Amino acid sequence: MPSTAGQVIRCRAAVAWEAGKPLVIEEVEVAPPQAMEVRLKILYTSLCHTDVYFWEAKGQTPMFPRIFGHEAGGIVESVGEGVTELKPGDHVLPVFTGECKECAHCKSEESNMCDLLRINTDRGVMIGDGQSRFSINGKPIYHFVGTSTFSEYTVSHVGSVAKINPLAPLDKVCILSCGISTGLGATLNVAKPKRFNGGSIRIGSSWPCCARIAGASRIIGVDLNPKRFNEAKKFGITEFVNPKDHDKPVQEVIIEMTSGGVDRSIECTGNVNAMISAFECVRDGWGVAVLVGVPHKDAEFKTHPMNLLNERTLKGTFFGNYKPRSDLPSVVEMYMNKELEVEKFITHQVPLSEINKAFEYMLEGDGLRCIISMDE
Amino acid sequence: MPSTAGQVIRCRAAVAWEAGKPLVIEEVEVAPPQAMEVRLKILYTSLCHTDVYFWEAKGQTPMFPRIFGHEAGGIVESVGEGVTELKPGDHVLPVFTGECKECAHCKSEESNMCDLLRINTDRGVMIGDGQSRFSINGKPIYHFVGTSTFSEYTVSHVGSVAKINPLAPLDKVCILSCGISTGLGATLNVAKPKRFNGGSIRIGSSWPCCARIAGASRIIGVDLNPKRFNEAKKFGITEFVNPKDHDKPVQEVIIEMTSGGVDRSIECTGNVNAMISAFECVRDGWGVAVLVGVPHKDAEFKTHPMNLLNERTLKGTFFGNYKPRSDLPSVVEMYMNKELEVEKFITHQVPLSEINKAFEYMLEGDGLRCIISMDE
Ligand SMILES: [Zn+2]
Ligand SMILES: [Zn+2]
Ligand SMILES: [Zn+2]
Ligand SMILES: [Zn+2]
Repeated sequence: MPSTAGQVIRCRAAVAWEAGKPLVIEEVEVAPPQAMEVRLKILYTSLCHTDVYFWEAKGQTPMFPRIFGHEAGGIVESVGEGVTELKPGDHVLPVFTGECKECAHCKSEESNMCDLLRINTDRGVMIGDGQSRFSINGKPIYHFVGTSTFSEYTVSHVGSVAKINPLAPLDKVCILSCGISTGLGATLNVAKPKRFNGGSIRIGSSWPCCARIAGASRIIGVDLNPKRFNEAKKFGITEFVNPKDHDKPVQEVIIEMTSGGVDRSIECTGNVNAMISAFECVRDGWGVAVLVGVPHKDAEFKTHPMNLLNERTLKGTFFGNYKPRSDLPSVVEMYMNKELEVEKFITHQVPLSEINKAFEYMLEGDGLRCIISMDE
Repeated sequence: MPSTAGQVIRCRAAVAWEAGKPLVIEEVEVAPPQAMEVRLKILYTSLCHTDVYFWEAKGQTPMFPRIFGHEAGGIVESVGEGVTELKPGDHVLPVFTGECKECAHCKSEESNMCDLLRINTDRGVMIGDGQSRFSINGKPIYHFVGTSTFSEYTVSHVGSVAKINPLAPLDKVCILSCGISTGLGATLNVAKPKRFNGGSIRIGSSWPCCARIAGASRIIGVDLNPKRFNEAKKFGITEFVNPKDHDKPVQEVIIEMTSGGVDRSIECTGNVNAMISAFECVRDGWGVAVLVGVPHKDAEFKTHPMNLLNERTLKGTFFGNYKPRSDLPSVVEMYMNKELEVEKFITHQVPLSEINKAFEYMLEGDGLRCIISMDE
């Protein structure tokens, strides 16, 4: 196979031309990577709620045409000037947030909120030159969160690409580049349960978490959709609460079930009332609530400060506090060592040509992750 | 000296007969300690804002006549049935909150919010039999937070009394039974700064904290009262901000001063707007805000949840997360080892007969701690 390095690559991509309209498979031109960029051949990608959210573009500035996609596994095709940490042939996961390794956040062991490469959903171009690397007949197509993995080839900043074990099956570990890792990190890195003496983790079951891996003995799932309860059992949830089944606030129900509140709670929906419930259902003295779900821009978190003074902790996390390049390889190793099951999150698989089916499955609340195979 | 054990003791106490009215030195009768109680001879006590707050009784259920006082040092006079951990002659600090050593909170290494002996400002009687041990001519006088140290003798539950090194000077370490320990614990146990690379702690300077002991290199004090600034310098504060000097919210001023926010903040006033400022002035990625000040009962803490999602932590503490019996002796040892200066907090000293002067000093914002000596 002759090298394509330095040349424009023509390939297939699923382009979103308008908010909420089915994606169209187009032939796009993908420019070569510039300084500190890499061009990736995507083998597998999957659909995440965040793609759907920005594709619907309700309440955000619409940015179209755009190539969505941010959960994926691929292989480095070529690298731009100054890239030393990656070379053609490396197996990688592109990530929607980056790690420059030079800013105060990257240098802090506590933060993963890189000043340079932190997620920016309003940016549709490369950070280096403000241009897009995608075009159709010379007209630019916008990028999405620095990944745009619904394309056979894409270009990312080197800081947004994690090099992983080449033995890891990309059709499985591709889903570790977003949701699964966020949930795992929220539990292991942020909630950090010391021990669970009959304690509990509450999870937003719209999006499965990894409380069982953390050793929780009781895992209470909360969801308005009773259909999700059966599915959540696969992930180790031991009890269910549907707020619709109760007259009183769900935090009071959980406090009663647990004689005082749960040790740790994780909120994954982004609904501000769910956030407040997740905080107020943790036990005084040592309870910790972790917010993961992204809130509405006008949301306001409200609580009586005595809930804090009584020694509850409230914190949020972004990508489970994982630094993408430094930490994601070890999450892949957890899968390789059979400490982390990934297969059970994968409920559907479609070829790129049928990517709109993945959107339908998600909008119908049917299943968890749909893998999109670029190779028909 | 003949033993007074088992007998009623007649002694002097400063009685608050009415909300906001000067205390009156009265001869009171102090009944012997009952099961799990101890009677203490108080040698030194000091006045704390919490005494003044409940003496003013604005917005709370008034409970009078009452003997206030909760920062003190004394000696065990006699012990009730079942008390094995204390004996007459032991040097002790009574504490406004207790440690039963048997409940889930006492058994948790993370909590000090004892289910049995947690502070209860609405209780004016002993927890064992619902009676007061104080009376004047047979009429009961209410207790305050299980300590009532504005009396030459008082009765406390054994769980609310910390046994300390008998070599520690009680006229100094008496102030370790409340405010100083709360500030020290909020800083060392809860804010837990890992390191301060040019970082900062913000303190509510109405009440001095111990950020310097924790190794902070920049300590920014915030107060509406410019008089407090000079005094705060003694405690290691390196910069001052008076919100009145700025048009924009104080959190924005601090974020500018520190190029992004402080590593840790501690809020000590209980004002809910100050709490919000204290939270919003910490740096994203790793900032931690610790709430110490007790809020108004109708207060509501409000913030945009993205401030949390951007990896800020919000937590509260009660008595600096110290377990009174288990941990206070080691705080006294910090003083004995010269790791903790206590003298500089003490700005006034009066005999019991002049206790109302201590109230005046505090109401005028003049000085920090006034030691009240029981021995004229
Ligand atoms: Zn995602
Ligand atoms: Zn960075
Ligand atoms: Zn106090
Ligand atoms: Zn207890």
